[in-house]
Amino acid sequence: MRAVRYYGKEDVRIEDIEPQELKPGTVRINPAYVGVCGSDLHLYFDGPVAPCPADAPHPLSGEQLPVTFGHEFSGVVTELGEGVTDLKVGERVVVEPLMVCGECDQCTSGNYNRCSKMGFIGISGKGGGLSDSIVTDRRWVHSVGDLPLDQAALVEPLAVAVHAVRSTPVEAGQTAIVGGAGPIGLLVAASLKALGVKVIMTELSAARKQRAVELGLTEHMLDPREVDVVAEVKKLTDGRGADVAFEATGAAPVLYSLTEALKPGGWLEVVAIHVRTPELRLNDIQYSEKIVSAAMGYANNHPEAIELARSGDLPLDGFITAVIEPEDLVAKGFEELKNNGEAHVKILVKVHGDDA
Amino acid sequence: MRAVRYYGKEDVRIEDIEPQELKPGTVRINPAYVGVCGSDLHLYFDGPVAPCPADAPHPLSGEQLPVTFGHEFSGVVTELGEGVTDLKVGERVVVEPLMVCGECDQCTSGNYNRCSKMGFIGISGKGGGLSDSIVTDRRWVHSVGDLPLDQAALVEPLAVAVHAVRSTPVEAGQTAIVGGAGPIGLLVAASLKALGVKVIMTELSAARKQRAVELGLTEHMLDPREVDVVAEVKKLTDGRGADVAFEATGAAPVLYSLTEALKPGGWLEVVAIHVRTPELRLNDIQYSEKIVSAAMGYANNHPEAIELARSGDLPLDGFITAVIEPEDLVAKGFEELKNNGEAHVKILVKVHGDDA
Repeated sequence: MRAVRYYGKEDVRIEDIEPQELKPGTVRINPAYVGVCGSDLHLYFDGPVAPCPADAPHPLSGEQLPVTFGHEFSGVVTELGEGVTDLKVGERVVVEPLMVCGECDQCTSGNYNRCSKMGFIGISGKGGGLSDSIVTDRRWVHSVGDLPLDQAALVEPLAVAVHAVRSTPVEAGQTAIVGGAGPIGLLVAASLKALGVKVIMTELSAARKQRAVELGLTEHMLDPREVDVVAEVKKLTDGRGADVAFEATGAAPVLYSLTEALKPGGWLEVVAIHVRTPELRLNDIQYSEKIVSAAMGYANNHPEAIELARSGDLPLDGFITAVIEPEDLVAKGFEELKNNGEAHVKILVKVHGDDA
Repeated sequence: MRAVRYYGKEDVRIEDIEPQELKPGTVRINPAYVGVCGSDLHLYFDGPVAPCPADAPHPLSGEQLPVTFGHEFSGVVTELGEGVTDLKVGERVVVEPLMVCGECDQCTSGNYNRCSKMGFIGISGKGGGLSDSIVTDRRWVHSVGDLPLDQAALVEPLAVAVHAVRSTPVEAGQTAIVGGAGPIGLLVAASLKALGVKVIMTELSAARKQRAVELGLTEHMLDPREVDVVAEVKKLTDGRGADVAFEATGAAPVLYSLTEALKPGGWLEVVAIHVRTPELRLNDIQYSEKIVSAAMGYANNHPEAIELARSGDLPLDGFITAVIEPEDLVAKGFEELKNNGEAHVKILVKVHGDDA
């Protein structure tokens, strides 16, 4: 079968490989659409980093580069392994693209996203969405009902957003500030709006500012170059400050202004990966009992993400800014996102598309 | 009446001043014992900082230096203002030494320790424990039953410890690591032990290490110069890491090792004031969903602190390392703590003592 394989920095090849074997307890899926993720982009341009197994096999997949690419994908069930009786051939599904040990304290307490051995299907081995078929454990397959297959490819990043939101104590009627209107910031904002939370956003890019407002994700888009974000948030909350904040830019100055814009006792959830190891200034939280945490992936969040996606309350169609062919992954996917990223939310690669 | 007044850096005077007026809703108390606090020490040696009103009157007390000193104190009710019917003359009490606006969002939601105008009785005005009598609002007076008056002077710092513990999700049967065996670290450890939490401590000072073990507050005292704290904590928790951590040293290296010693998803509560603005490295919490917060004072924690103190489960007697006279406050209090601090947990100033 055809598969898009990642060999390392700026080395992606479309190859003909053997399909994975259908074993008891597994499901074969024909991928429909695959989202291009920021992680894929970094792997492509910067080379492999954990959990992508460059120097040794990943402990859970037993595989080393090359790996089949693609971890944000929808598809259709084509074959059921022995013992899988609660799915049907032809059913629309998404894959929660994880591999975890299943035995550690975190796995057995339901926080499997914190498993120290965690890997990603499509990054650490075990196949990927960018291939004619993939076989995965029943555990990771979620039915999406009649959700369109292109929108279903957004369920994975939506689960990241839902996980971040659910990691905080935010409630309907409260006010959140979301730093950054990139894909994850937008999905966090959309999840918050669906929960009945008032959303204030900050963003520098004109295109991203405009899109967030047009998609109806915020009535309060603040540009830190134009306004004093902290003062504006205070103004919009009768002087109280935001109840929660989500840092989805990876930029330290945003981290600092969001912390300051919180009410005393407010909660800051860091969703972006801060590659430059920015330093949270402890004095910014010390006298006001603010709480800082960071969300990583998802654990048991796919059902809620799917429910949200199916509710029609989220403008998911507006998140899909291009649909490309697998052979265009580098030119119209990675290069396009690198050079023209602000024009996009999510680029989907059509594998089998609606014919999956 | 006699009062110990704080005028500024290295300027404390015993003076004869007018007693405060008893107004409706207030209570007059004869202070018995007054604890010497680290904050007092800093004010004395380093000069006034907020909320000690040096340059302008404190917004809630309306007072400016000098102020009567002493905010950790026990005493006996001597007079009840009009309308106070639920206390009796002769009753043993402690004062929760706060002044708050009572009107802001934080005050009305029960988190009055986060009131932006908060001041301390004994630091910001409104009298202090180091005087023959003090008048304070009924709201701040807590009956301590038959708790000995010297032990009752420890209720205030114990409330700080209880507040820190209750700010985390720690439960009986879990493991906590407490960085620092100074007064607050010891009281945090004692509160945790009383809750059924296993306590690991870290400390450098030989005297403090010995005292914590002798008081029965930990079976696991780790000296970071002698052992790898993170490895030891892992060993003591079957490889999991601590469930919660309390930073009670104010030293950045301790902050870092405690963060690392936590399990994924674990909670770090900063209790010490970090005057050098240490910087939490976001990457230390990013991939493991750890949570960092800071506790400040107390809010509605005095009842539990008093209950704990009265339970007899805490070795409070062992926390009192000296009892001095008011005229010795500088020499046997501040100077002693500065030069020989490790030999002490809490020095009490006897005002009226058991004859209050």
